[in-house]
Amino acid sequence: SRTIRLAVIPGDGIGQEVVAEGLKVLRAALPTDTKLETTEYDLGARLYHRTGETLPDAVLEELKGQDAILLGAIGDPSVPSGVLERGLLLKLRFAFDHHINLRPGKLFPNVKSPLAGDPQIDFVVVREGTEGPYVGNGGTLRTGTPQEVATEVSLNTAFGIERVVRDAYRRAQARPRKKLTLVHKNNVLVHAGHLWTRIFEQVGREFPEVTTDYLHVDAATIFFVTQPERFDVIVTDNLFGDILTDLAAAVTGGIGLAASGNINPSGDFPSMFEPVHGSAPDIAGQGKADPTATVLSVAMLLEHLGYAVEAAAVEAAVAADLTERTGTRSTSEVGDALAARVSG
Amino acid sequence: SRTIRLAVIPGDGIGQEVVAEGLKVLRAALPTDTKLETTEYDLGARLYHRTGETLPDAVLEELKGQDAILLGAIGDPSVPSGVLERGLLLKLRFAFDHHINLRPGKLFPNVKSPLAGDPQIDFVVVREGTEGPYVGNGGTLRTGTPQEVATEVSLNTAFGIERVVRDAYRRAQARPRKKLTLVHKNNVLVHAGHLWTRIFEQVGREFPEVTTDYLHVDAATIFFVTQPERFDVIVTDNLFGDILTDLAAAVTGGIGLAASGNINPSGDFPSMFEPVHGSAPDIAGQGKADPTATVLSVAMLLEHLGYAVEAAAVEAAVAADLTERTGTRSTSEVGDALAARVSG
Ligand SMILES: CC(C)[C@H](C(=O)O)[C@@H](O)C(=O)O
Ligand SMILES: CC(C)[C@H](C(=O)O)[C@@H](O)C(=O)O
Repeated sequence: SRTIRLAVIPGDGIGQEVVAEGLKVLRAALPTDTKLETTEYDLGARLYHRTGETLPDAVLEELKGQDAILLGAIGDPSVPSGVLERGLLLKLRFAFDHHINLRPGKLFPNVKSPLAGDPQIDFVVVREGTEGPYVGNGGTLRTGTPQEVATEVSLNTAFGIERVVRDAYRRAQARPRKKLTLVHKNNVLVHAGHLWTRIFEQVGREFPEVTTDYLHVDAATIFFVTQPERFDVIVTDNLFGDILTDLAAAVTGGIGLAASGNINPSGDFPSMFEPVHGSAPDIAGQGKADPTATVLSVAMLLEHLGYAVEAAAVEAAVAADLTERTGTRSTSEVGDALAARVSG
Repeated sequence: SRTIRLAVIPGDGIGQEVVAEGLKVLRAALPTDTKLETTEYDLGARLYHRTGETLPDAVLEELKGQDAILLGAIGDPSVPSGVLERGLLLKLRFAFDHHINLRPGKLFPNVKSPLAGDPQIDFVVVREGTEGPYVGNGGTLRTGTPQEVATEVSLNTAFGIERVVRDAYRRAQARPRKKLTLVHKNNVLVHAGHLWTRIFEQVGREFPEVTTDYLHVDAATIFFVTQPERFDVIVTDNLFGDILTDLAAAVTGGIGLAASGNINPSGDFPSMFEPVHGSAPDIAGQGKADPTATVLSVAMLLEHLGYAVEAAAVEAAVAADLTERTGTRSTSEVGDALAARVSG
């Protein structure tokens, strides 16, 4: 028998509601000899307004001892833009060295894509999670004057790029199509872009079976809507990955279905699983949010913790549920249905 | 009677072919009392291979004396990525302070969008053209070693942002819907993002009739495919504008129709008009390229030079041609048809 210590950060808005359903399905999926020990952390807008803190040091310390983190959503209009994103969400990703930000782009059967002609979409984006323009390096000079200058520095290291590129090659190697696309903008961002390109080619020599190509980020967005079938595994930097995975969510039927894992493969720190969507304050507390993205993130969590069979069962439950979905159901009705399928 | 001195830079690949048709239509559109004086500059891959130069100083000096520039496409697989882009295309945009990079996103009647459900799309992206991550600031340390570090610095100034934001407000004010959307990523790129947001709000006070909103770039890509009708005028930075305008081209029927103007409203230097598409070396020299994007760029050129009626005639010719388009025609057949409509 095994015990999983899971930190739960419901966060803001619909975070609470979707995380509750995610946990319901997780409990239904785990084998009976696995014990789930959850600790909930009340982080987000409420804590910030009460104490001015986003991620207290003591909480960060405690989280280190957990096996994984399930996060709902972060962000509220009452908090200045960037405070919770940088002070909580990105702080966790950076503190726990979540360098593999894994985001599947999969169109499930019976899900309507906004694209015409029923495209077949099944790719995964491996987004770098700890470097690039997300490092927070930069500042302002003569702030608030007509002479103000603001900088943002994208930091990229051979070390950081190589590990995510190798991870992406491994994933491509393990998939039937064995295809890997690098996305960057190496004709303009020549310093970072050529480093990515060079490492992509170097590491590729270890994976002769993997077919590769390269696309500029602007061209990649075109193919996402005109030819999404062409993608298998995509590896890209932090900012391009952010943009491409929202677009991927859009073409695969919406952000309500897009799952993600912030993974530290070393296991030194807990990995974190979260839906790609935000806190959607406009529909919070009304039981309207679709918890499916969180449930699919739970499947990724199971996979990460070594429960491959259980992960597959959760994904199969979602696929079956989507196929038979009619009418509108509340957040908890969807969670109940998925949990029932998983246990059944 | 007036004389227009036009610099023509056909560039690489299909550039030559599409520019020839653009000039054909331009000649047909201009009033008989306007004289067109063109000077062709052979810049691009050929010059680079011959001399190692991308934009000789003498050519740059000569270009300064022209009224406008018509550019085809730049880039060839035989030249390392970035050399022609940074050394020629971006050099022109920066040297001539093309801070308004204007890119309409318009779905013409009878043009098939990859989006389901016949969306109505008619917006314009005002992309900043002289700052942001495009400045080329950055470098590498310990190049080629496992310890390599590469940086890219995004430079943003109140001066540079204010002028493009004000231009975008003016354009929004002049359109029936009077709506302006700022796109950035101010929850992550807080230094540059908050500067953009602050200036956007400040300048907005001068335009009380314009409705505004803000979207993170990732969310904007979602709306481009799920709700493109919501956009009227969009203002954004250089890199986000690059990405969004390729996506805009995709949802409005393809890069073969997307026009752009690199505009310096002061008139101190010539503005430059070019199709958004690249040099497409795979189909170069075969008469297969669609010159429509170049012809629409010619319409923007006419508008910029004060020929509003003639610009409208060219756009109307394109609209009519697209409505009646059947079968495949060669590059010059499309150009002939458009020129005939414009003269007729
Ligand atoms: C909320 C924001 C900081 C975050 C990001 O930009 O990474 C989000 O958009 C995401 O994709 O997870
Ligand atoms: C060729 C490249 C430098 C250019 C850009 O990134 O601006 C192109 O993509 C464009 O959009 O005009």
